[in-house]
Amino acid sequence: MKVIAIDPGYDRLGVAIIEKDTSSKERLIYSTCIETSPENIFTERLKKIGQEVRLLIKEYQPDYMAIEDLFFAKNTKTALKVSESRGVVIFQAVDNNIPVCEFTPNQIKVAVTGYGKATKNDVYTMTMKLIKIDNQKRKDDEIDAIATGLTFFATHKNYS
Amino acid sequence: MKVIAIDPGYDRLGVAIIEKDTSSKERLIYSTCIETSPENIFTERLKKIGQEVRLLIKEYQPDYMAIEDLFFAKNTKTALKVSESRGVVIFQAVDNNIPVCEFTPNQIKVAVTGYGKATKNDVYTMTMKLIKIDNQKRKDDEIDAIATGLTFFATHKNYS
Repeated sequence: MKVIAIDPGYDRLGVAIIEKDTSSKERLIYSTCIETSPENIFTERLKKIGQEVRLLIKEYQPDYMAIEDLFFAKNTKTALKVSESRGVVIFQAVDNNIPVCEFTPNQIKVAVTGYGKATKNDVYTMTMKLIKIDNQKRKDDEIDAIATGLTFFATHKNYS
Repeated sequence: MKVIAIDPGYDRLGVAIIEKDTSSKERLIYSTCIETSPENIFTERLKKIGQEVRLLIKEYQPDYMAIEDLFFAKNTKTALKVSESRGVVIFQAVDNNIPVCEFTPNQIKVAVTGYGKATKNDVYTMTMKLIKIDNQKRKDDEIDAIATGLTFFATHKNYS
């Protein structure tokens, strides 16, 4: 089973492709951070995000998409923009008949660290321990996407 | 010049196709209200919205998309969902290299009624006066989309 996991955003969007066979551990196939420039108008940034995610879906043919949910809004303007980006990304999955599983930040923290009050650093450290990640330098957004993918597999009985 | 105008939403989304030649008045070519069922999971509703807007773009080949902007959030949860739908709709335009023009509710009120404190009913009444609309019954969402399209043409010198 293969999942494309997303840490949503519009300036940086983390993506991870993770695979797991019935008996084996999760295996990281690929991760990246899609970056868009604030010098571009916002709709062009959405275009880049959607088109790059569509290409990754075409290349890796995942069975599911896992994506972090957004349900708070400390900064409304930012939250609305992240939601637009989430909509664009979710559309790429459903347009290809790929089911989408959404996880709250709390669900991800609990799945990865066993502790709902874990810090960002705890999630980072545990993620690096839970899955083999080569030495290539990865951005925080990629690690967050990997954590979201691990959450999917930790709860995948509900989705298989 | 042809515009696809959108009144964004996720339960009902108004769409209008409006055309205008240099010398003539605006002409309403088509309008519809895309409705999604709350019985479907939200990602499936986004799928329907995106695929139907994509089909309309393919059929009518508009030069621009005009869409109402969302910048408030009385109900955060609703606003985030409307933003996801907006993202999906905007992507259909930019994915086809169609520029997107966003208008605030205030800009639409001023363009259609000349008055920023106009009520929803004022906008409705003036829209019906400004463009020839046949007797077919139309939903409020369609009228709002038509008003958004009229706003585009009222300010189109900035976009031509």
